[in-house]
Amino acid sequence: MTRYLVLLLVALLAIGAANVSASPTHSRARKHQQYRHTNGVQAVMAGHESARWAQHRRLSSSATIHHAVQTLFGPGARNTTDKLAWDRLAELTDTYGPRPGGSQGLEKSIDWMVELAKKDGFDVYTEEVPIKYWRRGVESATLITDTWTTPLHMDGLGFSAPTPKDGIEAEVFVVNGFDELDQAGAAGKLKGKIVLVVYEWTKYSEALKYRTTGAKRAEKWGAVAYLVRSVTPFSMRTPHTGNSQTAGIPAAALAVEDANILARIFARDHVAAPRVRLVMQSETGVSMSRNTVVEMRGTERPNDVVLVGGHIDSWDKGVGAQDDGTGFMSAYHALYLLKHRVQVQPAHTLRAVLFTAEETGVQGGDAYYAAHVNDEAKIRVALEVDEGVLTPRGLVLDGTKLDGAAWDMYQEISAMLKEVGVRGWRVERGYAGADVAKWCKHAVCGQWMNDTGDYYFRYHHTPADMMDAVDPVDLEDVASTLAILALALPHAE
Amino acid sequence: MTRYLVLLLVALLAIGAANVSASPTHSRARKHQQYRHTNGVQAVMAGHESARWAQHRRLSSSATIHHAVQTLFGPGARNTTDKLAWDRLAELTDTYGPRPGGSQGLEKSIDWMVELAKKDGFDVYTEEVPIKYWRRGVESATLITDTWTTPLHMDGLGFSAPTPKDGIEAEVFVVNGFDELDQAGAAGKLKGKIVLVVYEWTKYSEALKYRTTGAKRAEKWGAVAYLVRSVTPFSMRTPHTGNSQTAGIPAAALAVEDANILARIFARDHVAAPRVRLVMQSETGVSMSRNTVVEMRGTERPNDVVLVGGHIDSWDKGVGAQDDGTGFMSAYHALYLLKHRVQVQPAHTLRAVLFTAEETGVQGGDAYYAAHVNDEAKIRVALEVDEGVLTPRGLVLDGTKLDGAAWDMYQEISAMLKEVGVRGWRVERGYAGADVAKWCKHAVCGQWMNDTGDYYFRYHHTPADMMDAVDPVDLEDVASTLAILALALPHAE
Repeated sequence: MTRYLVLLLVALLAIGAANVSASPTHSRARKHQQYRHTNGVQAVMAGHESARWAQHRRLSSSATIHHAVQTLFGPGARNTTDKLAWDRLAELTDTYGPRPGGSQGLEKSIDWMVELAKKDGFDVYTEEVPIKYWRRGVESATLITDTWTTPLHMDGLGFSAPTPKDGIEAEVFVVNGFDELDQAGAAGKLKGKIVLVVYEWTKYSEALKYRTTGAKRAEKWGAVAYLVRSVTPFSMRTPHTGNSQTAGIPAAALAVEDANILARIFARDHVAAPRVRLVMQSETGVSMSRNTVVEMRGTERPNDVVLVGGHIDSWDKGVGAQDDGTGFMSAYHALYLLKHRVQVQPAHTLRAVLFTAEETGVQGGDAYYAAHVNDEAKIRVALEVDEGVLTPRGLVLDGTKLDGAAWDMYQEISAMLKEVGVRGWRVERGYAGADVAKWCKHAVCGQWMNDTGDYYFRYHHTPADMMDAVDPVDLEDVASTLAILALALPHAE
Repeated sequence: MTRYLVLLLVALLAIGAANVSASPTHSRARKHQQYRHTNGVQAVMAGHESARWAQHRRLSSSATIHHAVQTLFGPGARNTTDKLAWDRLAELTDTYGPRPGGSQGLEKSIDWMVELAKKDGFDVYTEEVPIKYWRRGVESATLITDTWTTPLHMDGLGFSAPTPKDGIEAEVFVVNGFDELDQAGAAGKLKGKIVLVVYEWTKYSEALKYRTTGAKRAEKWGAVAYLVRSVTPFSMRTPHTGNSQTAGIPAAALAVEDANILARIFARDHVAAPRVRLVMQSETGVSMSRNTVVEMRGTERPNDVVLVGGHIDSWDKGVGAQDDGTGFMSAYHALYLLKHRVQVQPAHTLRAVLFTAEETGVQGGDAYYAAHVNDEAKIRVALEVDEGVLTPRGLVLDGTKLDGAAWDMYQEISAMLKEVGVRGWRVERGYAGADVAKWCKHAVCGQWMNDTGDYYFRYHHTPADMMDAVDPVDLEDVASTLAILALALPHAE
């Protein structure tokens, strides 16, 4: 650890001397040190303490970092019309629409990003990834009662089985959660029925299982199809798609309102159980896609790599503006800002990786890991943005290399960003995102956090995931912060 | 005025003596008087002041009013599972769905409400109204650019002309507001184009003109179809329908996100203007519908009528839960509460009127006025609920009979409701709703207000206007307050 930190700091100071003219602000460093003391952040690993404090002072007074922070967040750094990342994402999504795995929209979008990176003067290359895809065809769900018939707001789930061409029509049996499902199943009540699972929303990670594993569970009890209340805290009659484990029966999500209508009718003793007619067509196949890598090669330690990533594929109904347009674009834009605004050449190598086919099973991320885990150039830090770009909160970090000293170093960076007024900055320990999770075995891994609770899941996997859901200032802020992190992050080892 | 107030108060006190055993709370009356003084509510019409103060004291200490307030809002009056109005509205809308003019859903819903009123022991009758209807057929809008093609989220506007059967395809010309539309038109730029009007949202009353009058304006300049950014402050890819003046060209609303995509592509010089393919079928006709009247006949002054109303028809995509399910149900439920909870017989006549075919041009409301303006029984007060039931704010009042003394009396009721803790209560002057507006010439007219700004217009005329958008407690509160008002309101004349 100590050896790497010293190397890093020497490199940072060298870059600072070579690339920028701004002198370290000693008063800022003193103020920062004071901040640390008054906030009582624990110094870990006693014995190394005084050496680490010296490093901290040097980090926060590094001319390069200071210059980057001032350029991207300092007074006059940003004017209100500065929304380049948003404009580029808008042009891309307006031009090619959604980017589901196996679609022309995805491959054309990759081409567009490659061209953009070339125009911006980057080294850029793609790496082919064979992917499985699921392509939505005609689909509909219709509520049929004794008194009226109406189309339901539905979305087939990814990798769902299709219905027979003419569809399925059956009585609906509504259960609240999996325990009720299994009880009804064991009592033989689900045979020949379309099962609908409703549940009380708590959070995404709790609800997710109903989308991903419910169809197999219902199939086991003889159900002919599986419906789930959309995985969302909020609905404007909005169905939310997403991946599911393929079962022998078709699986679809209903908008919350539609699930609730079925549940109410089902609960009324004096009327017949509701029926649903489900028609779902889809196609699965294998095609070739690409991970896209935009690189700034390190001047001093090219084999030490900091990766920032997001996935370029999306679901098919909106344009994937938040999921994960904001992710891949903020990763790319971080490098753009370093090259064109901060105008710095990093000592270590920076990579923006635009993973493909995440929505269809983290195919791009897993392929990237498999292809590069044994490279001579080692990924030291792997960060991703894949929960949208909203009010920024900072980073969730994880990984075997996140030892006490590394953690303390991240806290140091956090304090520095907070001090210069970067919005909502903090560091927490937690789960790294899907596309970088495998790197946690070898590196510090992590993901970008928002400070808006479940807000993101209103838009997640819906037709409403459009550019209007993205705030240009949020996107610019996150890309700017990623730029500083990519430059400043220590190589924990 | 004075004569009527005295009559009213005598009647109220008589009812109080006849129907309830609760004694006036003198301490409450004193506290109330104190409230009035400390809040400096202006006493108008000097000279009558001391007499009116005596009346106010009697009103707020009236045993009937006190009993009603305590029964509906007092300690223990409401338990959390008390959501009868919501449950009934849910059962109605779950059973018959939306209620557009000319639909079976509307007529069956009217039948259901008539049966409900009979079961509840009310005098109920319907009055036939011949109505014009517009029935949506197959419709779609498709964006076609050089690079992708995608369905747009759209809704044809009520009474729009249909397209030819095979649809219309043309280049889109985007304008920001009517001034730009007329400039572009005068310059010959709209000929043969599909015009899209976008605009910055300020409020419903400002934006409404773009929906209602835009098609005729665009037609004048040779446009072949008219599109409008949906009239809403908020969108989850949500199109908002609504009525429009029939033009020779078809007219439809796009979801905000879809309007914005078109506007951005249109603004880019380096790509071709976007094209839209519009297919809209619809049918207009004449059918018979009904206004529904539920009545509690006055024991003392049956010819003095207080009307509370809402319209029972709705738009076709959601179930009209807020617009205007909450309106007609809270009007009906106000009478239900008086009869079954408060158990009072009013001195004057109370009518809940469920107007038909408001969305298609206030047809039920206007017919009701025409049929009853010369009746021997006079409508003295006409209130409606037609902006949804959300966080309550009180009443907007208007009308030629709203003179100084009447206004002061309403303020007195307002203060009384506020004192007993009725949520968000106040009285303002302003526009009465569409179905009761004509009564303003003869009576005090008014409408229910919410304290949530534009929130209601998120749901207005959309597929998301479902029961999930209605809070059971809000609905119960509004109905309870209407019940007290229907009982307490002075007959200003």
